[in-house]
Amino acid sequence: MDAKASQGAWNGGGAGGPAPDFQEIEGRVRRFQMVLSDLGVDAALLVHKMDVFYLSGTDQDAHLFVPAAGDPALLVRRSIHRAKVDARMERVVPLQSFSELPGWIRNFQGAVPKRLGLELDVLPAKHYLTYQRLFPETDLVDISGPIRRVRMVKSPYELSCIERAADIADRMLAQVPSFLQEGPTELQLTIRIEDFYRAHGHPGIIPTRGFNRLPVYGQVMSGRRAAEPSNSAGPLGGKGLGPFYSQGPAPERIEPHDPILVDYAANMDGYVSDQTRIFSLGPIREIFLRPHALVVEVQEALIRRGRPGVVAGDLYETAVKMVEQAGFGGSFMGYPDPVPFVGHGVGLELDEWPIIGRRSKTVLSENMVIALEPKIVIPGQGVVGIESTFVVTPAGLKRLNRFPDEIVVC
Amino acid sequence: MDAKASQGAWNGGGAGGPAPDFQEIEGRVRRFQMVLSDLGVDAALLVHKMDVFYLSGTDQDAHLFVPAAGDPALLVRRSIHRAKVDARMERVVPLQSFSELPGWIRNFQGAVPKRLGLELDVLPAKHYLTYQRLFPETDLVDISGPIRRVRMVKSPYELSCIERAADIADRMLAQVPSFLQEGPTELQLTIRIEDFYRAHGHPGIIPTRGFNRLPVYGQVMSGRRAAEPSNSAGPLGGKGLGPFYSQGPAPERIEPHDPILVDYAANMDGYVSDQTRIFSLGPIREIFLRPHALVVEVQEALIRRGRPGVVAGDLYETAVKMVEQAGFGGSFMGYPDPVPFVGHGVGLELDEWPIIGRRSKTVLSENMVIALEPKIVIPGQGVVGIESTFVVTPAGLKRLNRFPDEIVVC
Repeated sequence: MDAKASQGAWNGGGAGGPAPDFQEIEGRVRRFQMVLSDLGVDAALLVHKMDVFYLSGTDQDAHLFVPAAGDPALLVRRSIHRAKVDARMERVVPLQSFSELPGWIRNFQGAVPKRLGLELDVLPAKHYLTYQRLFPETDLVDISGPIRRVRMVKSPYELSCIERAADIADRMLAQVPSFLQEGPTELQLTIRIEDFYRAHGHPGIIPTRGFNRLPVYGQVMSGRRAAEPSNSAGPLGGKGLGPFYSQGPAPERIEPHDPILVDYAANMDGYVSDQTRIFSLGPIREIFLRPHALVVEVQEALIRRGRPGVVAGDLYETAVKMVEQAGFGGSFMGYPDPVPFVGHGVGLELDEWPIIGRRSKTVLSENMVIALEPKIVIPGQGVVGIESTFVVTPAGLKRLNRFPDEIVVC
Repeated sequence: MDAKASQGAWNGGGAGGPAPDFQEIEGRVRRFQMVLSDLGVDAALLVHKMDVFYLSGTDQDAHLFVPAAGDPALLVRRSIHRAKVDARMERVVPLQSFSELPGWIRNFQGAVPKRLGLELDVLPAKHYLTYQRLFPETDLVDISGPIRRVRMVKSPYELSCIERAADIADRMLAQVPSFLQEGPTELQLTIRIEDFYRAHGHPGIIPTRGFNRLPVYGQVMSGRRAAEPSNSAGPLGGKGLGPFYSQGPAPERIEPHDPILVDYAANMDGYVSDQTRIFSLGPIREIFLRPHALVVEVQEALIRRGRPGVVAGDLYETAVKMVEQAGFGGSFMGYPDPVPFVGHGVGLELDEWPIIGRRSKTVLSENMVIALEPKIVIPGQGVVGIESTFVVTPAGLKRLNRFPDEIVVC
């Protein structure tokens, strides 16, 4: 890593912020409990790592039992020692096997819940069938929507983490021109970016909730390779390394005058910011100028309209309409298989709610955090796009990434 | 990256081997179909990315329909264009929605299967409940064990990929002494290792099948931090970056004379080799010498005994007995929460079968590939261990990693 990249890097725990405190975690649990009450769900039993971390402060292997009223408890498989140190919760107990669950809950609560919430969007079917056997009289309901909705609105602590992530991302983007001088391929640029992030405390992954989605942290792609269709959950995927791993950078040379798309999520203390900028070696080819100006215009329109009370689906339609009127509707958000969204929530995971997408009924509210990513494919040629991370405020979307929107000519 | 690390790195697609060919994929499908027949399962509907890749040759987002007899078909959500290029299968068709599945299968097969195999170990409960609604007359059975058993035995093509991965890993380990001169922290060593691997075509992740397991590629840990308990599915975890990511390297200085454990899986063309070696800055403290010699002795004993026909659980008991007799039984394979295994299969994923663990009834057979990893914790002090990747042959285990077993003093 070069000297500049090392500045501000962790030297025994520097750039990392504080972990969430007891009050932070209690506030989250209380908000979730209110939702459980409203839904008539007696308790939730959570296992998805990022839900458990969100509501307990530890990423240990555990069940988190949250009754609609009263104290939660963390039932830890591994490591109980570590969980007792990290969890911001009074009741942290060991649990070796699923089969101990009904007995433990009965002791704790006096009875087994009549309606128990589980994260059915991520819970493996085999585990679900096990819970069915263990709780034969209990109605097992899907609690994944409610926990995702609670997680949509960020606390001041969470906003400060995401702001730090956005700041590191800005500093990474500022280095891209010098990274490009160090190696001529997409893969070499990727390695420099990953170096930089890792040196600043990035864990090297960005958790995702979606099934079959790998928690890769980003993508570098350039020229016609960026315009190749892919299996990515996002609009663009890149060529990748081969059929075993068919997205992200290729070990191929970046050509002058082609758009180089750098879409690399930062991660600080577990919190994500997501941003994309376009670079080029020498002036970019003229065909990319108008669509790039257009995605910036789309972003500006959404910034003005994105306030509490606005329906997410309406923001998406605003974007689609602008792009269609400009004549690029056929390759907006992917080609030939576009994705039906222009933005998504970020927080502990890259694919949080709200989705700013077709028919999304979610109403924006203050302190939601979203990444907007209008992107356009020029088929067979390349891609342009812009992405930043925003917090919803009464005055519109407040941008957390400060790196300029313009194409950076290197 | 230094000049040496760059040698042999991808320059437009160098070190990557060929993708699997039609014959390879057909052979795999046929072996799986024989198992379906034996089990009386009419067809399997697979979605787990690495199962789909194994049986089709592409990692696109798709359902793979495999009848017990007759042609399989790949039903692709995204990207159909890419799947048609990469899949080694005649029938590759688009499928937009789950709800099209019953109709499509009925057209293809004349009827909906009576018994349909699903990967219940990884399939989200919500998807499972959707399949239940879509196939109300069908008996949905768990096919995850059978597909994992088919994948245990590697083809010559697969062995050649794993051999290449083991070779890259050997070359990475040879660089560790020079990496250690470049930076004094666990995190800095990690960055050098990840640079090296990425430059040689490593995708930067190692897929895992287990629920809630992140596909990180490895761990660097040293001294007392390595002896901290963790949430790792393996014996050791390390201190990590904070409660949000509590395993792997810490941004803390490596102390002289402490064991530095480097456990970083290689990945070539999707195939994994797994290996661990111990390094130290200056001569290692004497307390680590005997346990390190012991894990090498355990490895040698297992190499001699590991042949076709041997029960995996017996190999594990051999290891446990040796370690107990030497007086280290209390901290073998983790402390204070040991894991009940000493090895695991590797292939497309890090946590493949067979598990060389307590009560494992799996009988070893030729061309299974396993990583053996006897490791011992010296509580509060550090850890030692050894790990290599082996193929089962009639003459015993054949080692694929050639890097010496001894502690490397730097």
